[in-house]
Amino acid sequence: MMYICRRVEFCASHRLHSPVLSGTENEVLYGRCNNPNGHGHNYVLEVIVAGEVAPDTGMVMDLKKLKDLLEEQIVDRVDHKNLNVDVDFLKGVIPTTENLVASFWKLVDGKLSPGCRLHEMRLWESDNNMAFYRGEGGKVKVHSEK
Amino acid sequence: MMYICRRVEFCASHRLHSPVLSGTENEVLYGRCNNPNGHGHNYVLEVIVAGEVAPDTGMVMDLKKLKDLLEEQIVDRVDHKNLNVDVDFLKGVIPTTENLVASFWKLVDGKLSPGCRLHEMRLWESDNNMAFYRGEGGKVKVHSEK
Amino acid sequence: MMYICRRVEFCASHRLHSPVLSGTENEVLYGRCNNPNGHGHNYVLEVIVAGEVAPDTGMVMDLKKLKDLLEEQIVDRVDHKNLNVDVDFLKGVIPTTENLVASFWKLVDGKLSPGCRLHEMRLWESDNNMAFYRGEGGKVKVHSEK
Amino acid sequence: MMYICRRVEFCASHRLHSPVLSGTENEVLYGRCNNPNGHGHNYVLEVIVAGEVAPDTGMVMDLKKLKDLLEEQIVDRVDHKNLNVDVDFLKGVIPTTENLVASFWKLVDGKLSPGCRLHEMRLWESDNNMAFYRGEGGKVKVHSEK
Amino acid sequence: MMYICRRVEFCASHRLHSPVLSGTENEVLYGRCNNPNGHGHNYVLEVIVAGEVAPDTGMVMDLKKLKDLLEEQIVDRVDHKNLNVDVDFLKGVIPTTENLVASFWKLVDGKLSPGCRLHEMRLWESDNNMAFYRGEGGKVKVHSEK
Amino acid sequence: MMYICRRVEFCASHRLHSPVLSGTENEVLYGRCNNPNGHGHNYVLEVIVAGEVAPDTGMVMDLKKLKDLLEEQIVDRVDHKNLNVDVDFLKGVIPTTENLVASFWKLVDGKLSPGCRLHEMRLWESDNNMAFYRGEGGKVKVHSEK
Repeated sequence: MMYICRRVEFCASHRLHSPVLSGTENEVLYGRCNNPNGHGHNYVLEVIVAGEVAPDTGMVMDLKKLKDLLEEQIVDRVDHKNLNVDVDFLKGVIPTTENLVASFWKLVDGKLSPGCRLHEMRLWESDNNMAFYRGEGGKVKVHSEK
Repeated sequence: MMYICRRVEFCASHRLHSPVLSGTENEVLYGRCNNPNGHGHNYVLEVIVAGEVAPDTGMVMDLKKLKDLLEEQIVDRVDHKNLNVDVDFLKGVIPTTENLVASFWKLVDGKLSPGCRLHEMRLWESDNNMAFYRGEGGKVKVHSEK
Repeated sequence: MMYICRRVEFCASHRLHSPVLSGTENEVLYGRCNNPNGHGHNYVLEVIVAGEVAPDTGMVMDLKKLKDLLEEQIVDRVDHKNLNVDVDFLKGVIPTTENLVASFWKLVDGKLSPGCRLHEMRLWESDNNMAFYRGEGGKVKVHSEK
Repeated sequence: MMYICRRVEFCASHRLHSPVLSGTENEVLYGRCNNPNGHGHNYVLEVIVAGEVAPDTGMVMDLKKLKDLLEEQIVDRVDHKNLNVDVDFLKGVIPTTENLVASFWKLVDGKLSPGCRLHEMRLWESDNNMAFYRGEGGKVKVHSEK
Repeated sequence: MMYICRRVEFCASHRLHSPVLSGTENEVLYGRCNNPNGHGHNYVLEVIVAGEVAPDTGMVMDLKKLKDLLEEQIVDRVDHKNLNVDVDFLKGVIPTTENLVASFWKLVDGKLSPGCRLHEMRLWESDNNMAFYRGEGGKVKVHSEK
Repeated sequence: MMYICRRVEFCASHRLHSPVLSGTENEVLYGRCNNPNGHGHNYVLEVIVAGEVAPDTGMVMDLKKLKDLLEEQIVDRVDHKNLNVDVDFLKGVIPTTENLVASFWKLVDGKLSPGCRLHEMRLWESDNNMAFYRGEGGKVKVHSEK
């Protein structure tokens, strides 16, 4: 078993606001991240794929194919976007780092080359904050219902 | 003459859109940065101050005072904000990196400790794009008039 | 199960010297790190917390609370300190990266939000040296007895 | 159980080309990495060792010994080299990141201090591409036979 | 006057060897960089352009045009190449960082948007070694004659 | 004219305390940096040398010689040291970043290869604080007299 990691970047804006909390509760919980007009980040996403090394190629999976998959499924849909408004697969999702990485997981899982599986996704919101997910314990519920 | 540099960070959202250009011209010029609902960045600002080293303290300027000045004048007013909407001193300013750094310059210039002068301000929008300003050639005109 | 990571920094001085070794043994073992008057580092600490994502908030744990906990329990007590002399919870502890991270673990473990557990602590002494701990195999014995 | 990580760097050139594929297949699979005259990278290798912390020293393993081992076994043999031509232990190995890290593993595994074991090796080819290996599932077959 | 910086990356292999020095002199001067089969780097190039900020756009120069120019003139011609063999404009040039940055300067100088001028080019061969050039003192002679 | 930069690192401890100020004045001025038992940093020093590129070698100055000079004159004397106690050339010098970089300048200035001159020295105390010096305006007075 070998693991490969591909890193991609995108920049986006978002606002943290829960539909099931009051205005004051949102302010207390999210602080400056609840600013009504939003703010933004340069996000860094690290995607780790596990598989066997093919002796004929020396590769777990063609890194170019992995890059293309990540761009098609994720980067092209979130880069230079407002995550609360512009992204179909994030409708109704509070765009915390946790919910983003769980949503990205669903878009890539099952689409890798044969014999490969998604091992981990790491999403950095800044140099100081990150969330990572390994697909453990069933799908994360990313939608909040009012 | 000695130079000291203090680095601060903030995250914000913005949209590049010029009031004197048509919708199509804006799309062509700014590309994805013209997205109507905006996007965002983790900005890094480096502020360089020039002055003599005081023999009694070994310092050009108290770095804590410089940090406090930058937070009061800049970071507290732009961090976790929408630069097109939330920031008074950016009203009517297209928030390109060039215009931002020129605007920040005005907020700090002349407020340093006696004997010190602002030498350079560098603003990184991402790892790949940066603008810097040295106060050369008079004040930069940052406002676009319709 | 989701994992969140918070990164904090502090700078401190230390000297590596074991009370159960002779002066020569200490010099041979620790080399320049045994310098009697000490040296120092900019440390980077990454703290990883595991838990379920709360659907109402989209968060594993309020990152602000995690940051406050880390500052209160660790950063405020070690930042700009001499780790051999100034820090009560490090009395009698050889301040290697391994012993530091095991000591920090004890200060945070059990103090997280309900439903969360400490998954890993990573302490970088420099860009080249790091130790991490996952709470495996019982508490690490960090005190050397003469 | 505690984990320590040592990071080393080397720069080298390589060409990706499989002896069991046709010229066209190689071009399609490896793209620009198949350039006949090669290209190169600044590689970063992170080696993670697991073990108990010795109470007398506060260390899992003498980091100096680990560094010396890595330099002797790996860095001195690949730094400023052409990985396809100059390195004996890579003869017949397609120098992908996966094959390199598996080859490095064999050179270090079993040579650590008593009580320590190799936990993970991470090899960064660039800021965007990395492979890591944990010794799972038997030895990786790194040689392609024509 | 405002300055903008665009950063691009490429990876390439090279060998340092002067045609006017003996084999031994080359070995002594360049050390490991004289390895006959070459080695390689992940290069980082920072290009700084000076100009006035246009009030209608808030920009010194369209960053997309600058990026396209750098890719067309430099990156596409050196990325994943052997700098001693594959690159027409480097024929007969010892590919030191100094000679590379002077050669790149010639490819971009005079091709910027009206009103802009090339201010500085910085080329990092690794985290530890860099050369920069400001076009001072006439063109650098990059060709060694036997 | 071409510029080359060499980056070196060292770690050291220090305490900021001025002999011409009272205890309270020192506490107010230097804050946590006045801690009696000191603290420390991983310092990064960037040394920039200006000169002509020699056509026969493609180099401004042999980087290996520059590295050796920096190690001999600076790194070997300050690495893993207490800057207030262990370093002869810093006796009586308040070890601020400004005073350190001015002191380092004196140790290297005039010792470069023929035709080269020291252009700039940049010393990072942390990612956020830096001082640089260009030899302007005569020698900086680094000694405080009681």
